[in-house]
Amino acid sequence: MLIEAIYHRPKLNWAYSYDERTVHLRLRTKRADIDKVEVFYGDKCLPWEEMQTVRMEKLAEDEWYDYWETAVQPPYRRLCYAFILQDGDASIWYSEEGFHRTPPVRHLGLFEFPFINAADINRPPAWVKDAIFYQIFPERFANGDPSNDPADVQPWGNKPEQRNFFGGDLQGIIDHLDHLTELGITALYLTPIFAGETNHKYDTSDYMQIDSHFGTKETLKQLVDACHEKGIRVMLDAVFNHAGKAFAPFKDVMENGPASRYADWFHVREWPATIKDGRPTYDTFAFEPLMPKLKTEHPEVKQYLLNVAKYWIEECGIDGWRLDVANEVDHKFWRAFRDVVKEVNPEAYILGEIWHDSVMWLQGDQFDGVMNYPLSNTMLDFFVFGHLDAQAFANKIGGLLARYPKPANEACFNQLDSHDTVRLITLCKENTDMMKLALLFQFSFPGAPSIYYGDEIGLTGEFDPDNRKCMPWNEEKQDRSLFAYYQQLIQLRKTYGSLRSGTLRFLHAEQQSTGLIYERSDQSEKLIILMNAGEQAQTLSVRLEAGAWSDALTGDSLPVSDGVYTENLPPYGARVIVKGAR
Amino acid sequence: MLIEAIYHRPKLNWAYSYDERTVHLRLRTKRADIDKVEVFYGDKCLPWEEMQTVRMEKLAEDEWYDYWETAVQPPYRRLCYAFILQDGDASIWYSEEGFHRTPPVRHLGLFEFPFINAADINRPPAWVKDAIFYQIFPERFANGDPSNDPADVQPWGNKPEQRNFFGGDLQGIIDHLDHLTELGITALYLTPIFAGETNHKYDTSDYMQIDSHFGTKETLKQLVDACHEKGIRVMLDAVFNHAGKAFAPFKDVMENGPASRYADWFHVREWPATIKDGRPTYDTFAFEPLMPKLKTEHPEVKQYLLNVAKYWIEECGIDGWRLDVANEVDHKFWRAFRDVVKEVNPEAYILGEIWHDSVMWLQGDQFDGVMNYPLSNTMLDFFVFGHLDAQAFANKIGGLLARYPKPANEACFNQLDSHDTVRLITLCKENTDMMKLALLFQFSFPGAPSIYYGDEIGLTGEFDPDNRKCMPWNEEKQDRSLFAYYQQLIQLRKTYGSLRSGTLRFLHAEQQSTGLIYERSDQSEKLIILMNAGEQAQTLSVRLEAGAWSDALTGDSLPVSDGVYTENLPPYGARVIVKGAR
Repeated sequence: MLIEAIYHRPKLNWAYSYDERTVHLRLRTKRADIDKVEVFYGDKCLPWEEMQTVRMEKLAEDEWYDYWETAVQPPYRRLCYAFILQDGDASIWYSEEGFHRTPPVRHLGLFEFPFINAADINRPPAWVKDAIFYQIFPERFANGDPSNDPADVQPWGNKPEQRNFFGGDLQGIIDHLDHLTELGITALYLTPIFAGETNHKYDTSDYMQIDSHFGTKETLKQLVDACHEKGIRVMLDAVFNHAGKAFAPFKDVMENGPASRYADWFHVREWPATIKDGRPTYDTFAFEPLMPKLKTEHPEVKQYLLNVAKYWIEECGIDGWRLDVANEVDHKFWRAFRDVVKEVNPEAYILGEIWHDSVMWLQGDQFDGVMNYPLSNTMLDFFVFGHLDAQAFANKIGGLLARYPKPANEACFNQLDSHDTVRLITLCKENTDMMKLALLFQFSFPGAPSIYYGDEIGLTGEFDPDNRKCMPWNEEKQDRSLFAYYQQLIQLRKTYGSLRSGTLRFLHAEQQSTGLIYERSDQSEKLIILMNAGEQAQTLSVRLEAGAWSDALTGDSLPVSDGVYTENLPPYGARVIVKGAR
Repeated sequence: MLIEAIYHRPKLNWAYSYDERTVHLRLRTKRADIDKVEVFYGDKCLPWEEMQTVRMEKLAEDEWYDYWETAVQPPYRRLCYAFILQDGDASIWYSEEGFHRTPPVRHLGLFEFPFINAADINRPPAWVKDAIFYQIFPERFANGDPSNDPADVQPWGNKPEQRNFFGGDLQGIIDHLDHLTELGITALYLTPIFAGETNHKYDTSDYMQIDSHFGTKETLKQLVDACHEKGIRVMLDAVFNHAGKAFAPFKDVMENGPASRYADWFHVREWPATIKDGRPTYDTFAFEPLMPKLKTEHPEVKQYLLNVAKYWIEECGIDGWRLDVANEVDHKFWRAFRDVVKEVNPEAYILGEIWHDSVMWLQGDQFDGVMNYPLSNTMLDFFVFGHLDAQAFANKIGGLLARYPKPANEACFNQLDSHDTVRLITLCKENTDMMKLALLFQFSFPGAPSIYYGDEIGLTGEFDPDNRKCMPWNEEKQDRSLFAYYQQLIQLRKTYGSLRSGTLRFLHAEQQSTGLIYERSDQSEKLIILMNAGEQAQTLSVRLEAGAWSDALTGDSLPVSDGVYTENLPPYGARVIVKGAR
């Protein structure tokens, strides 16, 4: 047993309250190093004889480690525990006091999860793990009201540029809700819709106004109501890290300098607030002078932004906030934000934009989930770029599953592309089979999948501004077979609960191979998914119990011979195997 | 290089903002496995060419690992980084994406400390790291006002029992402040003084009243004022995890059951709230029916307790709160508590009673420090029980130093005994040399040392109730030479800033040995401490630069020959070596 590889520390993803009675415990060991792990646990105030033992299961594995997990229910909600690691005849006890060959003899040196306090449980809204999101860049989705178009509006479908406008608006979304219900999505994420000077509106000039080219508060209310009628939730984009240069308090600072009553609303490093040696003398998003960073710890700024967060929920009934550049804003702000948001809508989804390990924001006090870029990159590396073989892919995925608590994994926002990336179909060099395979993984993985508007009909796009093309509404310009495939995937995910909250286990993921087999299962069902992520046909086999099996996507019935199902999958081919005939 | 042993994860003790410009980064590697570690760091929005490299120093080592540390100052407060580990000719890059033989080529896969937000910095009050605490159990310190004695008061100095009373009170403390100033302490910690039925008052009946046997709000105010005049701060005990059975809301619940308007102030698992099969049907401290657990997440309970916290600061000017059973109360409550306390007194010390790894409470949002029981146990294991040899002791201490951020280590409350443990002198079997050696370590370690009343004059005591004896005020019954030693230690700590916030480094700590040499140093001074923690005399040597050296405690000048100082230390003997003549 490699002692140095063993890791546990209470809280975070290692010991967390799953619900008011249950604690999930996890342990890391060197990969393939240990036969068996148990948890020895109990209540520190009960007699030592009442300590119990339960076996841990393998949750995941990555390149270097195995991750073990079990759930325990301490009767009085106080939990102390140690781990018993066994390899052959050798066993080691691991407690807060370290590693020992002999069992502990008292509660004090054990690890402790002191008490399951309801107030600390990270419980994302239940609807999120079942949601299918659709991300809209409003300026480019549909122009429903030409009367509010910008003066210099371009003809719909022309080439997008950094600074041009096409007239898309909220009415356009209302007009096309049928497209969305036909597709089957259950939640919208709109990039910013508040007053701003750019087409992307990440440079807010007024957080209390809908951008006049997008509509009014009334239009937003109509949109939300129409969505709710169709069972679609609406999430808006909260750009609270920074404002835009036309934000009145910032304009005041630029005009009045340190004498401005808003001088302390921003982080001016050196007066005057200007550009010096090519960089702003005040903090900004990146080094973008048009986007001055807000001092979110200033009581007035904090109160102002918290009011914004509350206002749009109360006024228009929105169902969530996506938080732009979330990790550059202070934790203290987000804790207050959560309190305000959940107070007016306990079912609101709080989603942070963080491109890195986000466990420190997912402890129940800040976000429900994060935009899962580490997952996006891993999926692209395997399905699209071929940077990973199946084993390396499974390893990366295993590491990702282990690093957040289960409820946080299930409440992540899983995108394959967005307004910040090249579009998936373009990355796939328009190979729709490749694209579909990546999508199948996305839709069969824990966390809410998100579709970037237009992906479903084959819209292409390189980096910004090309990834923000106008949505083509002429069906002849749409890839309707791709649309149909999205419909199938959405239906699949809605039908099988195990895809949303079941256990994920890799059954086959070898080095130098592009063949992948994994299962999603819960107490009532099991799906087994075969994938060929390579350019050549390849044969994959999986052991199945006796009985009838079919493909959950196509309905094909699948012949099992001698307990094994074998198929020669075409390039980027897949099977979603489920018990029974469809 | 043992890859599996390498560990880093942003935030916690691994990457934290030390001040508004500085981030401390730490890395763990297998012990004695790596020659050199560097950090490669920069701003994710600047050109790749502007990335820099800085060497990490060894912060500490424990049984299994080395811990490396460095401080970096990202100019725009955004930080991305990777580690470069070198062993001989081999080097490995460690980033959020894992371990690589080749350098990274872009910012995205690096670790990220997204932004130094002032609101998130853990900045304990500066006075705490310089403080010397004195813990008083008020019922047993001094009886200054016999008019408020309990009816059945026992003669001062009689045998303490679980339920008897001796009449100690706040006036008694006021009367003996000269003893405390003569000793040299700078802060008091009083165990609970609010109305309660027991002698220890951990069963609060009224949080808004000083216990009538201890005095009144006026007496507390006089005590605090008198202390402040003498440069002594006063910390009270906040027992917010549970109340006492005479707490009015709990009495109401016991009388009216589920119909009580306070029914939801407690955690009643099963009505009626009673004892069933020997255990209360409501949550309590341990299984003590007289101490019902408060539902701190209930808005009314929360507000009530937050008002208590604020009230005693505002009314009487207290300087801090020690939080009883702190880890069984929800994190959310403590965050609100911190906001309320720091708003009325930004310099108030918030100290949690946690006997375990407490890093999740030390992130700047909850506590300034914790009662450092893991340190107490380690010191006792080495100096008193002989359970550890010098190497094992140094290893444990190294692990403790590495597990919290530096400011949290310096704001910990370091006791060798308390009202909850056997007294130090009794553990030492009244060997005062042994005791003095343990004290020297305590007073030369980061974190505020605390003296349990009476320890300084040799008061003995087994477990509760024997550890709560009446303070003997007759000097003939006091060990005045011990008192003088405490005075020396306090003076030593006040004189040398390096003992409070310098670097600690072990110079000599071998297996199967009780000889220990360590140094505390900062930019202006260096102290080298030699200890013999064994029952036999032993000779220790240390290399010293040329010059005059003396013992900082005794003033002895120390002869250095050929750059080496050698001394045959008696059992439990020590030297505190400092440059220069005293």
